[in-house]
Amino acid sequence: MNFSVQVLGCSSAIPTLTRNPSAHLLHADERLFLIDCAEGTQLQLRRYHVHFQRIRHIFITHLHGDHFYGLIGLLTTFHLLGRKEELHLYGHAELEEILAMQLRASRTNLIYPVVFHPLPGEDMRETATDAPDRCSSFPVYEDEKLIVTGFPLLHSVLTTGFLFREKPGPRKIRKEMVNRLDIPNEWMGRIKNGEDYVDGQGTLHRNEEMTLAPPRPRSYAYCTDTAYTERIIPVIRSADLLYHEATFMQDMARAAREKFHSTAAEAATIAKLAGVKKLIIGHFSARYEELGPLLDEARDIFPETYLAEDGTIFKI
Amino acid sequence: MNFSVQVLGCSSAIPTLTRNPSAHLLHADERLFLIDCAEGTQLQLRRYHVHFQRIRHIFITHLHGDHFYGLIGLLTTFHLLGRKEELHLYGHAELEEILAMQLRASRTNLIYPVVFHPLPGEDMRETATDAPDRCSSFPVYEDEKLIVTGFPLLHSVLTTGFLFREKPGPRKIRKEMVNRLDIPNEWMGRIKNGEDYVDGQGTLHRNEEMTLAPPRPRSYAYCTDTAYTERIIPVIRSADLLYHEATFMQDMARAAREKFHSTAAEAATIAKLAGVKKLIIGHFSARYEELGPLLDEARDIFPETYLAEDGTIFKI
Repeated sequence: MNFSVQVLGCSSAIPTLTRNPSAHLLHADERLFLIDCAEGTQLQLRRYHVHFQRIRHIFITHLHGDHFYGLIGLLTTFHLLGRKEELHLYGHAELEEILAMQLRASRTNLIYPVVFHPLPGEDMRETATDAPDRCSSFPVYEDEKLIVTGFPLLHSVLTTGFLFREKPGPRKIRKEMVNRLDIPNEWMGRIKNGEDYVDGQGTLHRNEEMTLAPPRPRSYAYCTDTAYTERIIPVIRSADLLYHEATFMQDMARAAREKFHSTAAEAATIAKLAGVKKLIIGHFSARYEELGPLLDEARDIFPETYLAEDGTIFKI
Repeated sequence: MNFSVQVLGCSSAIPTLTRNPSAHLLHADERLFLIDCAEGTQLQLRRYHVHFQRIRHIFITHLHGDHFYGLIGLLTTFHLLGRKEELHLYGHAELEEILAMQLRASRTNLIYPVVFHPLPGEDMRETATDAPDRCSSFPVYEDEKLIVTGFPLLHSVLTTGFLFREKPGPRKIRKEMVNRLDIPNEWMGRIKNGEDYVDGQGTLHRNEEMTLAPPRPRSYAYCTDTAYTERIIPVIRSADLLYHEATFMQDMARAAREKFHSTAAEAATIAKLAGVKKLIIGHFSARYEELGPLLDEARDIFPETYLAEDGTIFKI
């Protein structure tokens, strides 16, 4: 599967001329998943030549404006361009009301179906706060190739992180075993799915002898906005790519904590503790014109760190 | 008075990489008035180096997204940048609810005061429809230098046009008359305000003999979105600058009418009938890559027509 993510915005709340606020576009083969949708996201999609009508699923982490103020405009543009395909939105309950109210005010009846999937509410958030030793993740989406899991982040409003994980593919039958055991066709699917095989003589052949393990499922974790919290580690452990916000540098750790944001060093510490393969940092405060120092700070702790700058594509 | 307008967006509903949707910035000396505020307007203000905290008044014509989806983001940025000054919003009643709901969802209490001034509602719109021979204008704003008048446009939802008009300045006393008649200081203000003067000998001097008329008050009319309607002519008559939408070319006059928009030729016809000095056209459909043909079409009818392209400044 082609599995990659394109950064559409790496700014925190205040947009700049070179950094749009939060939005990431996940490619999973021909499918496009949008994660967050700040003001200006539809223009970013145009800028990077994305066929954005192919987006079928949009995930909104939380209801701070820099994560969803571009959603209503994108929905309207879909409508004006004659979209027919169903669109699935995943967000907290108030989002549905906000969108409905704006569509009502403009007397717009979207010409395509929108299915709203509410994410777990405040009770989920409290659970997370009360039980620092565990993270309550929950299923958000699943298809034949991909599973999306939600989990609470530590922010000033209810906020959900998302883990996008490939489903394990079927096991691969070793060619020489097919020939040696003369395995009939009707058994192939069952063996690929992990079953043992009993041949015509009644001999049992263990699956592991006949097959090779499928490639390890890859995963992408999207964690913004959040203060430093080790509670997320069990969910994001060993992810191939982790996006973790790094609004500030370590000299502003206190401000970060007060505003429920993280520093670059904290993002790197989470990456290290979770044993992820690669970390990308973003959601940078507009105060930083140069991002090099944030990258340096993170790399001191976790060398495989990269800047999630607008337009950059990361293979997962 | 420095009196000019800068175009921040000339696209209709769908933004493009070179044309943002509707927003105009009116400069009246040191004061800044924002008219409409589409998605991306705050970035346009940055792009054109506007000190946007100086905006004290924002006028929203109607609740189609391409005229106000950038407002909540701009209000939030004002807040994050520590604004203290009062902000006045002029729009239709539902706008206040939409903003309040979004601020509630993000748990934001703006740190500066916002005063919402509701524009007249649907009853005003019906009046306009029922009485094609007159246009019911209404006062919206007034200060020592400027008067803003609202008037109904002909659109698919309740829509208000705005006329920004300088107040007449005081009359200018002719220097040679001050000397000749030996006018005492305490009379100066009264004469500038148009009073006649009675000198020590009881002789009456008519004001027109002593003074020159002040410069003619200038005006700027903002008319979008609207179908062709001659009802607006009495209000915008003789304006120095008219912005009139021109979403389509004349070969799409029927589509324009159905969608309650205007063609370039129709905008020019209104300009001609209203006897304005200069016309700027905008709100162009994204279907037009080149705008020259729209300009040509309008100039055939009204030669003093210009394209209201993003960033352009027009002196009034």
